[in-house]
Amino acid sequence: MTHTEPYALTLDEAARALADRSLSPVELTASVLDRIAHTEPAITAYATVTAESASAAAREAEREIAAGRRRGPLHGVPMALKDLVDTAGVPTTAGSLVRAGRVPAEDAEVTTRLRAAGAVLVGKTHTHEFAYGTTTPQTRNPWATDRVPGGSSGGSAAAVAAGAATFTLGTDTGGSIRIPAALTGVVGLKPTYGLVSRHGVASLSWSLDHVGPITRTVRDAALVLDTIAGHDPRDEASLDVVRGTYVPRRDGDIAGLRVGVPTNFYFDRVHPEIEGAVRAAVDDLVALGATAVPVEIPMARYVQAAESALMVPEATAYHRETLRTVPELYSDEVRILLEAGEFVPATDYIRAQRARTLMRRAWCDLFHDVDLVAAPTVASPAARVGETSLEWPDGSVESVSDAYVRLSAPANLTGLPALSLPVGFDGHGLPIGMQLIGRPLGEALLLRAGDVYESAHRPTARLAPLRVGTPAGGPPGTAG
Amino acid sequence: MTHTEPYALTLDEAARALADRSLSPVELTASVLDRIAHTEPAITAYATVTAESASAAAREAEREIAAGRRRGPLHGVPMALKDLVDTAGVPTTAGSLVRAGRVPAEDAEVTTRLRAAGAVLVGKTHTHEFAYGTTTPQTRNPWATDRVPGGSSGGSAAAVAAGAATFTLGTDTGGSIRIPAALTGVVGLKPTYGLVSRHGVASLSWSLDHVGPITRTVRDAALVLDTIAGHDPRDEASLDVVRGTYVPRRDGDIAGLRVGVPTNFYFDRVHPEIEGAVRAAVDDLVALGATAVPVEIPMARYVQAAESALMVPEATAYHRETLRTVPELYSDEVRILLEAGEFVPATDYIRAQRARTLMRRAWCDLFHDVDLVAAPTVASPAARVGETSLEWPDGSVESVSDAYVRLSAPANLTGLPALSLPVGFDGHGLPIGMQLIGRPLGEALLLRAGDVYESAHRPTARLAPLRVGTPAGGPPGTAG
Repeated sequence: MTHTEPYALTLDEAARALADRSLSPVELTASVLDRIAHTEPAITAYATVTAESASAAAREAEREIAAGRRRGPLHGVPMALKDLVDTAGVPTTAGSLVRAGRVPAEDAEVTTRLRAAGAVLVGKTHTHEFAYGTTTPQTRNPWATDRVPGGSSGGSAAAVAAGAATFTLGTDTGGSIRIPAALTGVVGLKPTYGLVSRHGVASLSWSLDHVGPITRTVRDAALVLDTIAGHDPRDEASLDVVRGTYVPRRDGDIAGLRVGVPTNFYFDRVHPEIEGAVRAAVDDLVALGATAVPVEIPMARYVQAAESALMVPEATAYHRETLRTVPELYSDEVRILLEAGEFVPATDYIRAQRARTLMRRAWCDLFHDVDLVAAPTVASPAARVGETSLEWPDGSVESVSDAYVRLSAPANLTGLPALSLPVGFDGHGLPIGMQLIGRPLGEALLLRAGDVYESAHRPTARLAPLRVGTPAGGPPGTAG
Repeated sequence: MTHTEPYALTLDEAARALADRSLSPVELTASVLDRIAHTEPAITAYATVTAESASAAAREAEREIAAGRRRGPLHGVPMALKDLVDTAGVPTTAGSLVRAGRVPAEDAEVTTRLRAAGAVLVGKTHTHEFAYGTTTPQTRNPWATDRVPGGSSGGSAAAVAAGAATFTLGTDTGGSIRIPAALTGVVGLKPTYGLVSRHGVASLSWSLDHVGPITRTVRDAALVLDTIAGHDPRDEASLDVVRGTYVPRRDGDIAGLRVGVPTNFYFDRVHPEIEGAVRAAVDDLVALGATAVPVEIPMARYVQAAESALMVPEATAYHRETLRTVPELYSDEVRILLEAGEFVPATDYIRAQRARTLMRRAWCDLFHDVDLVAAPTVASPAARVGETSLEWPDGSVESVSDAYVRLSAPANLTGLPALSLPVGFDGHGLPIGMQLIGRPLGEALLLRAGDVYESAHRPTARLAPLRVGTPAGGPPGTAG
């Protein structure tokens, strides 16, 4: 098995092969299901694999395409959804015993849209319990299986990195799409707050939650966003905006693009190899026609306090009933965080809301001078399993969780779109991610810039070079 | 002195007299200032009277109008602003020693708009300290000076009721425009949340605060709203909407208007004379062509808890610094409320936000079946000064404050526009108010319905029959 197998194709490549019928949905889905069977023993990305219903959906897609009724680029393409996203008839447990055995009757809005576009659900991917964490303890990093994939969308990112799904969806409240994308060498997009519906997706913190794609290329992320973006009156925060396509032109350029390079915050306490790779990527953007402009990140010192004062009590409010009735079903780690949320005063929450408002305004001002901001996605590479803190050269010690969330949280607080894409590897061969942060609803520009970078600097290895063995006992869960 | 004096004119009447130059701004302003000097000893509506600058502004208006440069219906019309609203060069203290001697350098956005329209500022009106209460302790009700005018915009309402201002602005967080308007027999409009800027207006609770007009007629309220409504980027909640005029056509009708009559909540524990007057007013609307439709008010049992869980901590967050540095400058009543706000958990605040969202949605659904809802503005008439609670026929006891806020708070929580207008008097000769609640941005319809009612049923007495004596020592404060 080599990387020319169908499972190794990008979404864009697969879509073109499906369109010219050099590849069939059945063949592609079978290849991905086989890859899942081979990679799961090493990475455990899946909570549930829906092999049977996926094969049936692939056959249906094949019939439709053969009959000339191809729906679009996602038709017949295998996808996996984070186990926070409701899927009718398929267990959706948010990685928690609290929801063990739960099978939703209805699809989430994003699931409905993806199914309508013809995408084939191959399974549900692991998450940190209720998305409340940054490691995804069930799952391993395909680039080094003694390391975490990051989280909370760790299963989604690991699956894409390992070729065990052509694309996936994740959710991002403090960085949970971008962190695992960066740590597993794939692309993750947190769209503008309100662009993608969260109806039918378990909430961590409603004012910070976002749903978005995890893919192997920037172009693929655009193809998925095209399908999932759009107004949904059932999500109170959903924006009702007119939009075009997000897919970049193949001859796109970035001549004249003003790339903001932070003079504070984003390069503070960042692993030197990560700083080096991101600065080199900015140089690459400049070589491609962009201009680098130093920018000062506003109100950076309030990021962690504001993120926490909003997220912690919102999470607790969401779980209040079950926290009282079935506290023993939560992991100790998550239960303690949720119980702590009872003691956050409303005045702290309100002050955090105010800080967020001012922060959003200041960031929007910053975009008068630049078109996007380029920065590391996470400050340190994938931690070893069980590592809970790390020491910086200045002697300070930081929890892994803080080190992961620190640089991603500003885009959650401000609601600005942020795209993480791979820009190289460290000395241990661990992936490094750069995030591009843009104006509200500025996804098209981020995706164009990312695509131009990626087209010029495609990483040597697209899939993690996972040494896979014979599937032992099959995937961990099966349904549908 | 009779009610044919200029001070007794409505804004609309004054505007027409100013337009045809049968009345001059100087004459009108002098009449109002004289009326203030006569009524203040009895009602104490004003914190500051700006006689000198008002006279100068009136002369300037006179010159402009004489030169053919009349700006519109407010040009040369005397107004007063609640002392929460910033006025450049004129003390603005929010009724608190915390701001004693404070003279803002800049006008609030509404002040700027009103001055640009040529309105003449005659003074600043009393408010419950920082608007945190419903009685306005400094001020007396012009209809019975042993009674409160309601609050917190009690000074603004009393001034309009007494002829001591042609129109005023108030603010409304739980009913503070509508309550005093109802209790003093004038018109008060709480516009849709976000329609009128709060920039430069002291905040009580930013998610519930509204600024709006207090006037002697519905038509007058529309004339003021025309000037103050509109987008202001400096108020984060300000709506950027295109709008026409709010002033009703003089031949307007309400044929076919569907008036929702609540079957629950709004007539529970309401003084029988108030219930009778409001039901009679609904009958009058039906006689004028409307249809009465019974409606069930959604989520009514959550109104008081949600209003309180939002307002209390938001108020505390706003005052946090001064509460620590100068607690002794607050009245005990307000200081205790503010200190209590420190102990509201964020989870309660978040649950209240969620309740509000669901409530707003349910109310908007209700407006598929009716065009507006008619209800009492307050459950009981103006209390005697010093009365803090009242007993209902069922034996239950309620604080005056709760009895005043209970029926007005839903429009604050939902952000829906609500217009209070006089619909009669009780056996003690105390005014009774009805509120009309409408769809988001449905002010034009409320104002049309109110105007049609008012044109057919103009109250016998337009001004409070205040027995005024000789001015003793002049108004309580003077400036500018």
